[in-house]
Amino acid sequence: METRRINPEEAAARLLEADNILILTHKNPDGDAIGSGIAIALALQQKGKHCRVCWTGELAGFYSLITECYQPDEIGEPDFVLAVDLANPRLLPEDTIGYSDRVDMVIDHHATSVEFARETLLESAASCCAEIIFKVINAMGCSVTTDIANCIYVGLSTDTGCFRYSNTTADNHLLAAQLVSLGVNIAKFNELIFGQKSRARIEIERRALSGMEFTSSGKICIITITRSMLEETNCIESDIEGIATIPKAIEGVEAGITLREQENGNWKISLRTASLDAAEICSLFGGGGHIRAAGCECSGTPFEIKVAMVAAINKRLGLS
Amino acid sequence: METRRINPEEAAARLLEADNILILTHKNPDGDAIGSGIAIALALQQKGKHCRVCWTGELAGFYSLITECYQPDEIGEPDFVLAVDLANPRLLPEDTIGYSDRVDMVIDHHATSVEFARETLLESAASCCAEIIFKVINAMGCSVTTDIANCIYVGLSTDTGCFRYSNTTADNHLLAAQLVSLGVNIAKFNELIFGQKSRARIEIERRALSGMEFTSSGKICIITITRSMLEETNCIESDIEGIATIPKAIEGVEAGITLREQENGNWKISLRTASLDAAEICSLFGGGGHIRAAGCECSGTPFEIKVAMVAAINKRLGLS
Repeated sequence: METRRINPEEAAARLLEADNILILTHKNPDGDAIGSGIAIALALQQKGKHCRVCWTGELAGFYSLITECYQPDEIGEPDFVLAVDLANPRLLPEDTIGYSDRVDMVIDHHATSVEFARETLLESAASCCAEIIFKVINAMGCSVTTDIANCIYVGLSTDTGCFRYSNTTADNHLLAAQLVSLGVNIAKFNELIFGQKSRARIEIERRALSGMEFTSSGKICIITITRSMLEETNCIESDIEGIATIPKAIEGVEAGITLREQENGNWKISLRTASLDAAEICSLFGGGGHIRAAGCECSGTPFEIKVAMVAAINKRLGLS
Repeated sequence: METRRINPEEAAARLLEADNILILTHKNPDGDAIGSGIAIALALQQKGKHCRVCWTGELAGFYSLITECYQPDEIGEPDFVLAVDLANPRLLPEDTIGYSDRVDMVIDHHATSVEFARETLLESAASCCAEIIFKVINAMGCSVTTDIANCIYVGLSTDTGCFRYSNTTADNHLLAAQLVSLGVNIAKFNELIFGQKSRARIEIERRALSGMEFTSSGKICIITITRSMLEETNCIESDIEGIATIPKAIEGVEAGITLREQENGNWKISLRTASLDAAEICSLFGGGGHIRAAGCECSGTPFEIKVAMVAAINKRLGLS
């Protein structure tokens, strides 16, 4: 389907013509997906529209802070289907994937968007979808309540790592200033989003740290996650998100290696580097990636794999 | 000494009258102390002033990003002594404590300031000293270079926990927006300030996590730091900063307890709670503090102390 690119004002006008609006987002929704979906639903409800936001799976506990303020409407067959923070209809969860070819509008910030909807509001320079949603809400002439501000803040804060990541812009801070003025309890949100760890996460971290190995005068740090560790701790995928960043974040470490045992008995390797070319090193083992973050999959024992990786890294560090 | 309260414009005017300026700050300086000191020095150097910023002790590696951009002047006997981020002259490090009774001006944001200088620019509503320094620099008509913006950003980011703490204001975000526009590499700073852990810190964390105990259906989590653990890992005070926040930050934990062995054999207890009155509980053991963060010091074995604390907490959780 040919999509038509639209701006926030056009998106606002189109949404105001609809009555029963189904709002979709990607599976395993994050703060930006949920925050964007509920923010636009709350705004549309102000205008007398009926809205239902769909998401699948259990959300981390902190999302209740924003989901609680939203009452879904019974909408029956929707007359308008909106997708937010969705770059590709294949990322829809199973129970809404049937809507793939009848999405009326997508609002998104991913440069990788495949533009599958009838109309597309795409701002790929935006750090989060929520900041585009904020423009649409203003263009609809809605009042930005504290509940809406909370939703926008969660999207903004999640996708910028609480203003830490390199995608954070001056505009993001200007938006945050507005949201704080609207009464967002930023300390509470950020404590819940960034301060808390699941019990399974802390259990896997304690096992990973316990087996942490240093070599090459502390320049290489290795952690190993076995399948039995994951089973013991009941970890789900989201519990081990970002675990590969732990070894690299230690002062003095040039190369952080994380080994993760796969179901087929192979080991998935993540390499994070301070100054070395991680992609080049992983390419020696049939993998690839980015210059400071790359990966590969290896067979063999963890010991054999570590010896081979350390030798390659030592050579590039001038240590052999 | 009676102090005179001044505003940023008066502070700017007074500093522009001086020539050889000594800039002091508190011992164990943090990002706000160092950032404030170097920012004002760089601005004064633009105006042809000679400045020397004094700090004591080894700074964490990431400070080199801001200290490198500053060349101290040889000033001999100063004609003006400025203190920044200093609430009390007793907090001066040993090598500058001799200046305690001859500080000409203090610029600070601590509500606890004892106002010891001839003139005091105190804004206790400011989240960080650096935001007051920024006003003074503008009032002096200096150009805010990227180096100065970096220093201000480090102060702002450090004292607000990268915009996470409850002291973060809308004004802080407006300032951050300006600083980002001035070229601050926020991702690099924040990675170094918040993303990195010292080797000693990770070593103490791995020992603390390894001995972590849960009780009361996961509602109480306890970590214990012995003196031998600190010795084994060569931890200095800054390495264990904030370690008491670890148990409370685990999902489902109502009360996080940290036991730290003291030189005299006693145990210092930190209690962090989600909904219980931590100060009231610690008062049972001769301590006190805030409603969600309190402490006490106990003698006895760690086991005895833990049993007594858990009993008191269980009672308040309705579990006994």
